Amino acid sequence: MINQLVKKIKETGAPIVVGLDPTLSMIPKYILERSYEEHGETLEGAAHALWLFNKEIIDHTYDLIPAVKPQVAMYEQFGLPGLAIFKKTIDYCKGKGLVVIGDIKRGDIGSTSTAYALGHIGKVKVGSKEYYPFDEDFITVNPYLGSDGINPFIKVCQEEDRGLFILVKTSNPSSGEFQDQLIGGRPLYELVGEKVAQWGKECMGDEYSNIGAVVGATYPEIGKALRKIMPKTYILVPGYGAQGGQGKDLVHFFNEDGLGAIVNSSRGIIAAYQNEKFAPYGEENFGEASRAAVVEMIEDIGNAIS
Amino acid sequence: MINQLVKKIKETGAPIVVGLDPTLSMIPKYILERSYEEHGETLEGAAHALWLFNKEIIDHTYDLIPAVKPQVAMYEQFGLPGLAIFKKTIDYCKGKGLVVIGDIKRGDIGSTSTAYALGHIGKVKVGSKEYYPFDEDFITVNPYLGSDGINPFIKVCQEEDRGLFILVKTSNPSSGEFQDQLIGGRPLYELVGEKVAQWGKECMGDEYSNIGAVVGATYPEIGKALRKIMPKTYILVPGYGAQGGQGKDLVHFFNEDGLGAIVNSSRGIIAAYQNEKFAPYGEENFGEASRAAVVEMIEDIGNAIS
Repeated sequence: MINQLVKKIKETGAPIVVGLDPTLSMIPKYILERSYEEHGETLEGAAHALWLFNKEIIDHTYDLIPAVKPQVAMYEQFGLPGLAIFKKTIDYCKGKGLVVIGDIKRGDIGSTSTAYALGHIGKVKVGSKEYYPFDEDFITVNPYLGSDGINPFIKVCQEEDRGLFILVKTSNPSSGEFQDQLIGGRPLYELVGEKVAQWGKECMGDEYSNIGAVVGATYPEIGKALRKIMPKTYILVPGYGAQGGQGKDLVHFFNEDGLGAIVNSSRGIIAAYQNEKFAPYGEENFGEASRAAVVEMIEDIGNAIS
Repeated sequence: MINQLVKKIKETGAPIVVGLDPTLSMIPKYILERSYEEHGETLEGAAHALWLFNKEIIDHTYDLIPAVKPQVAMYEQFGLPGLAIFKKTIDYCKGKGLVVIGDIKRGDIGSTSTAYALGHIGKVKVGSKEYYPFDEDFITVNPYLGSDGINPFIKVCQEEDRGLFILVKTSNPSSGEFQDQLIGGRPLYELVGEKVAQWGKECMGDEYSNIGAVVGATYPEIGKALRKIMPKTYILVPGYGAQGGQGKDLVHFFNEDGLGAIVNSSRGIIAAYQNEKFAPYGEENFGEASRAAVVEMIEDIGNAIS
């Protein structure tokens, strides 16, 4: 699957991923009203509004980008109707040829991690039949439980040619509370990074591994150190845009081949019409505003790494 | 919510929780066949079998126990139909007066943690209406992202009188890979334990905090150390039974008041009829076998802590 992601990144010239993390406060009023008219002010009504919003953004950006990253929490908060739209979004994006990174941050003991892996990037058996329940291409995974919590995910990646992005250094302000703690003089995130590089060897694509890492754009120096520790690891970089990261901060997340990293922006793209700069598009044309924000982001990152 | 859990533990004399983590291989053939006849060999068919299995176990044990802990992965692996049964199980257990601990191990950056918290232990607003989408009483949470990933959960606990169990030292063999790493001479799990004790002060019940911790039965010495670091913290103890923990290992997880810990058993209870000892009940009476296993577990733990 990493081969497919790299191929799409080369084709589009866009090492970026659009985070499909909609909230009701981002959705234009006319869409909310249309959805509530049809479904009432219900969980279904909220979920359907997320869908209408997502579809417009996907339709306006899919030809420019290699991948999307729906954040499951934004759907899960609306219960089962929300999760139905998470699934609908995955299927629609795959239909458009996009690589789908499910931002689910799961992780548990072995047998439980197996269940998550089968449900999200693998298949389950029911009697004589097999099903791919959520069917993402990649998922994000939390490493706190150690190897036996990660190995079941790797096994499914091997069987199904799918991939992971394992949390190493997250983009939030207090990520250092545990992740930066020094162990024998070196921060925990470096230990986790070394493990990710090791795990990655078991699941290589052509140039890069199917086992990637998450390292926040908000910590460029750490990105530089981790780039060296994990040379064959694709880095998913959140925190660009709304969280404060900029193109120039990102250069060291990439390898000299111009590959090795994919930068996520969520709010900065999907709520672009609420940003002063793209406001002239107007609420009715929020998809166009998102497209303009994607073009600008590709330029910003392209300039930084060229 | 911790007050209600403590009250139920005192009433039942059973500091235990039944882990509702069903797999298809645990479910008697006649139930699978009945479910497949009705729904086909589909995700719905698998999910409905989980439901028939859960209901029988709940009906045979609810009067003996204070709480249940459904592991969401076991439902999520069957996609949306599976998650519908996760929700149905929560509602049914609450209707029986049980405290429900959703074993979901979520955790993310702030705004995303807020979404998980609202969806699982809080309420979401849709227009002028409010909904409690999953509506668990407690949930498990992963601390790897630090305070700003945890605070949104605590805020919702305060608003809604709900609770958390935060992963400190997990029961799996390789939990030590990161959790045991020494930081200034002390293991990471102690740092996390101290944080849990601090977070807990912001959300106290009468004797104990609504912010609990997860510490595996498989590490009794560590349980002893963490008990002292977190005196007001309820400890959820997985790993009893099938994972190797025994009643005598658990004494130091409890305080001198006989409270402070709640021990989980999943497979040991729900698949008891597959265990040689309870096999005489027969497949048809798997609920009775689970009840007998609960009675034995309550005795084992009661003997250890008395």
